[in-house]
Amino acid sequence: MRIGLIGTGTVGGGVIQILESKIPLYREKLGLDLELACICARTEEELAPFKSKGYKTSVDAMAMIADPSIDVLVELAGGYDMPRKWITAALEHKKHVVTANKAMLAKYGHELFPLAEKNGCHILFEAAVGGGIPIIRSIQEGFVGNEVEHLSCIINGTCNYILSRMGESGLSFDAALKEAQEKGYAERNPTFDIEGTDSAHKTALLASLCSGKYVDFEKIHVTGVSHITAEDIVNAKELGYKIKLLGIYAKGPDGSVDARVHPSFVPNEHLLANVDGVLNAVYLQCDNLGPTLQTGAGAGRLPTASAVVADLVSLARSTDTGKRKAIPMGWFNKENAAKLVPIEDTYSRYYLRFTTRDACGVLASITGIFSENGISIESIIQKGVNDPGKVSIIVVSERTKESKILSALNSIDALSSVAEKSQMIRFLK
Amino acid sequence: MRIGLIGTGTVGGGVIQILESKIPLYREKLGLDLELACICARTEEELAPFKSKGYKTSVDAMAMIADPSIDVLVELAGGYDMPRKWITAALEHKKHVVTANKAMLAKYGHELFPLAEKNGCHILFEAAVGGGIPIIRSIQEGFVGNEVEHLSCIINGTCNYILSRMGESGLSFDAALKEAQEKGYAERNPTFDIEGTDSAHKTALLASLCSGKYVDFEKIHVTGVSHITAEDIVNAKELGYKIKLLGIYAKGPDGSVDARVHPSFVPNEHLLANVDGVLNAVYLQCDNLGPTLQTGAGAGRLPTASAVVADLVSLARSTDTGKRKAIPMGWFNKENAAKLVPIEDTYSRYYLRFTTRDACGVLASITGIFSENGISIESIIQKGVNDPGKVSIIVVSERTKESKILSALNSIDALSSVAEKSQMIRFLK
Repeated sequence: MRIGLIGTGTVGGGVIQILESKIPLYREKLGLDLELACICARTEEELAPFKSKGYKTSVDAMAMIADPSIDVLVELAGGYDMPRKWITAALEHKKHVVTANKAMLAKYGHELFPLAEKNGCHILFEAAVGGGIPIIRSIQEGFVGNEVEHLSCIINGTCNYILSRMGESGLSFDAALKEAQEKGYAERNPTFDIEGTDSAHKTALLASLCSGKYVDFEKIHVTGVSHITAEDIVNAKELGYKIKLLGIYAKGPDGSVDARVHPSFVPNEHLLANVDGVLNAVYLQCDNLGPTLQTGAGAGRLPTASAVVADLVSLARSTDTGKRKAIPMGWFNKENAAKLVPIEDTYSRYYLRFTTRDACGVLASITGIFSENGISIESIIQKGVNDPGKVSIIVVSERTKESKILSALNSIDALSSVAEKSQMIRFLK
Repeated sequence: MRIGLIGTGTVGGGVIQILESKIPLYREKLGLDLELACICARTEEELAPFKSKGYKTSVDAMAMIADPSIDVLVELAGGYDMPRKWITAALEHKKHVVTANKAMLAKYGHELFPLAEKNGCHILFEAAVGGGIPIIRSIQEGFVGNEVEHLSCIINGTCNYILSRMGESGLSFDAALKEAQEKGYAERNPTFDIEGTDSAHKTALLASLCSGKYVDFEKIHVTGVSHITAEDIVNAKELGYKIKLLGIYAKGPDGSVDARVHPSFVPNEHLLANVDGVLNAVYLQCDNLGPTLQTGAGAGRLPTASAVVADLVSLARSTDTGKRKAIPMGWFNKENAAKLVPIEDTYSRYYLRFTTRDACGVLASITGIFSENGISIESIIQKGVNDPGKVSIIVVSERTKESKILSALNSIDALSSVAEKSQMIRFLK
């Protein structure tokens, strides 16, 4: 199996490194013949170190894709438009594709997966979600005797690192972000991670796999983590919870799909609660198997590269000696779009934090508004805050419909005795 | 793909149940054509409920295996000799095999896997280790871009339930075992589980997969859990640990294999520490991916059956449209046996508990023996015990070679001031 690789950056470089050490082993132990036949990058400069090692290189990706001696395209360049063009071309040439590009798959998968099926090809993307955790394979193969009823995942290492550090050391969000940037766990412009976009790409892919319907990442509810304060983390801890940014999928009523990304209160005894730092994890509730968790490195050069290599080995095992039936992904198209449950129609317990002027009667006003909206209160705590003259009121609601909470928050935020926009965080359960 | 099933017990019944609901879905969504063509059991009585549903049934397993219309044998009868005979016959008829029978595979896999390879067939056994956790698939496929450097697993739900309950509620071993039996988590004769034999079967299979060498379960060190006392559990808790029965694999020096089963002190912050009750978990340290954990139900009708069904779907995907290359398992033979690291040559920190008569000088004798054996002590605690006139001395050693510990224990147990056989439990790290 002759491999054409585009991208010599972090993950691409890692794939080359792993293939160099493993190809002889795969030949000897698995009887598989893999060859890194061509390496592509934008410039000769990027290619020089590989050229000097004797690899065939090219700056013309389309020519490499068209080369009939190339069997598989590995796309690790990142971005949207060029990968879409390359992958389309590869599939039209009836070549299999391996990619780690979740953003591009979330955006263009609805045209690429059906094209792959039409051409009898695979697009494998184990590295796109959860780095080296074999979660795509597990959902498509290991759990195929189950229906996934619920999935919650910690799928962005940057956010998990920030929230973990806030919990361990009482850091503010900004201080934890700065630390993450210094350690290379967060980009200089961290918006894509901390506002939940990356998690939404991955959650949409997982929700699609679980539901067998196309879940458009642009249509799912996304809340990031930048509004989480040290105070929220402390309050969560006192209540016996950790705050984690979760991607969530659940079966909705009448075949609809509940998919969303937001911070959640995770009980300390839940398997997800101890997944700290840059670790990722996917928790599934399956009909036959019950609860299951997979955790591991969700990013990084070699973890991600090892998932790309696993996809290549799968292809080699499948295609060397005949055509293995691809897992049909043709349902991943706009005609088969999932009916999404609006966030207003979801149910949860809620953590609500109100910052009020220390005014007489504010507690009565707030509890009155809850009552008007038909929301039952599970617990209520009043606390002093650093700012004198202000008081923090923390309410945990019983399980209720989100639309009721939103209506109550609107009314409460309009009270003159409320000093800041109120905080709302959902409970995992 | 026409399936012949032997065994209508817990797991076999579960497989029939799942196939009934899923076969139409597999046809519609995956384009796979599975058919439960024949169900075999020992007696017509066991078969009656299936016969009445319209299934073809048989009490003659060998005839079913020889039937050319059967493509795959699913062996879920349990036991050793008959399954070995059936699977041998199936492979000689060039039929694929799916089994959940870890005991038989641990005992006869060294002849069956090479026979499968010789005949171009697969033996799939996802359900044999970790129930519904797709760990076999993960090691063979998902982590194929890695070398597994270390594996620790909680792989027997009975033992994990007993140890968890001792930790939660201060139960004695006997009381926890009784509770496990009442709940159906332990057999009436629990020896096979609590003495570690079942864990040894599974650990040997995992160690073989990780090392690519045949690991004979009869040659690996096995200590069960029946000697663990409530006092040990309390002491572990005070030190910040939980006691778990672990199956362990690690790369030994010069290509040797360190495989063993014994109770271990697992630090509270380790991913394995929160795997409680009947849950199973496999923790791996891989060269590229780093640490990773998979957890879920390790036993039970539907979890185990769902793993069998996943293997059937894998086979159907592979064999419908050509011959997928089997993962070669021919190395699983006696000629390719792993050189095992003797337990005496392994290194660990050790928890040691001595029950001494409250005699003057016993502490000096014990510490003197440690010193003579070149063992450094990390901490030492003296405690009163319920029995007046006796004192408990708890020693945590620094990392040392097991042979030194065994020599020290021999000397200490010979002291007249020592009232009971000393307790020794290894640390995971």
